[in-house]
Amino acid sequence: MPGTFIPAREAVREKLSWGSLAWCCRPEGIGAEQLVVIEVTLAPGGGHAFHKHPEQEEVIYTIDGQVEQWLDREKRVMCPGDCVFIPAGVVHASFNASQRDAKLLAILGPSLGGPTGYKVVEVADQAPWNKLS
Amino acid sequence: MPGTFIPAREAVREKLSWGSLAWCCRPEGIGAEQLVVIEVTLAPGGGHAFHKHPEQEEVIYTIDGQVEQWLDREKRVMCPGDCVFIPAGVVHASFNASQRDAKLLAILGPSLGGPTGYKVVEVADQAPWNKLS
Repeated sequence: MPGTFIPAREAVREKLSWGSLAWCCRPEGIGAEQLVVIEVTLAPGGGHAFHKHPEQEEVIYTIDGQVEQWLDREKRVMCPGDCVFIPAGVVHASFNASQRDAKLLAILGPSLGGPTGYKVVEVADQAPWNKLS
Repeated sequence: MPGTFIPAREAVREKLSWGSLAWCCRPEGIGAEQLVVIEVTLAPGGGHAFHKHPEQEEVIYTIDGQVEQWLDREKRVMCPGDCVFIPAGVVHASFNASQRDAKLLAILGPSLGGPTGYKVVEVADQAPWNKLS
């Protein structure tokens, strides 16, 4: 595949209970084999609770707003330009405790089959993650 | 390695003739094996001329400003939220034709040895790339 431009208005979008996604890069429709890139909008009070990607590294880059980012049991507030590197299998979570939208870029390593190339294990209902805040 | 936060003020930075880089993710100091992520600032009139990454896919995501982006022989202007997927080995270039800084995120696939994990072949002095504008 020769590559492709993905203008923001043409990105595949998904509405979630806690925000929305725009798929910038994935196997389906784009042909990527090494990269999964998702522009994530966190609504005020929303977020992606504790989860992990067993086989994929992730970098989260903060584009806009403030994000309460967990890396294992450590929490920091990320502002635009801040990022976090999450090795494969490490539990993490991102919350928006502010009053306006926050936007980040979720970048994951080699996609492992399936149209989105995104594999996630949710652990928010398990200890110790169900006790953290 | 357990992962790490990289606040913007702590990122390793490099000054270039056409702008500057902030390394968000690479093998050296961070331990990444699957991802290379660089926040790139293009000064007005500056840019990274035609080049390719023989073994690494790349996604360029526009954070701020306007970028004249080449994908092989096709040129488009990218604005914030726009991105481009560049397969391994495909020639590309990014220029800032505006009067103010432009910022983008360069995201590359599996790093292949070396501290930065970034491998590039410059081709701007070769045909047909030396005739395009």
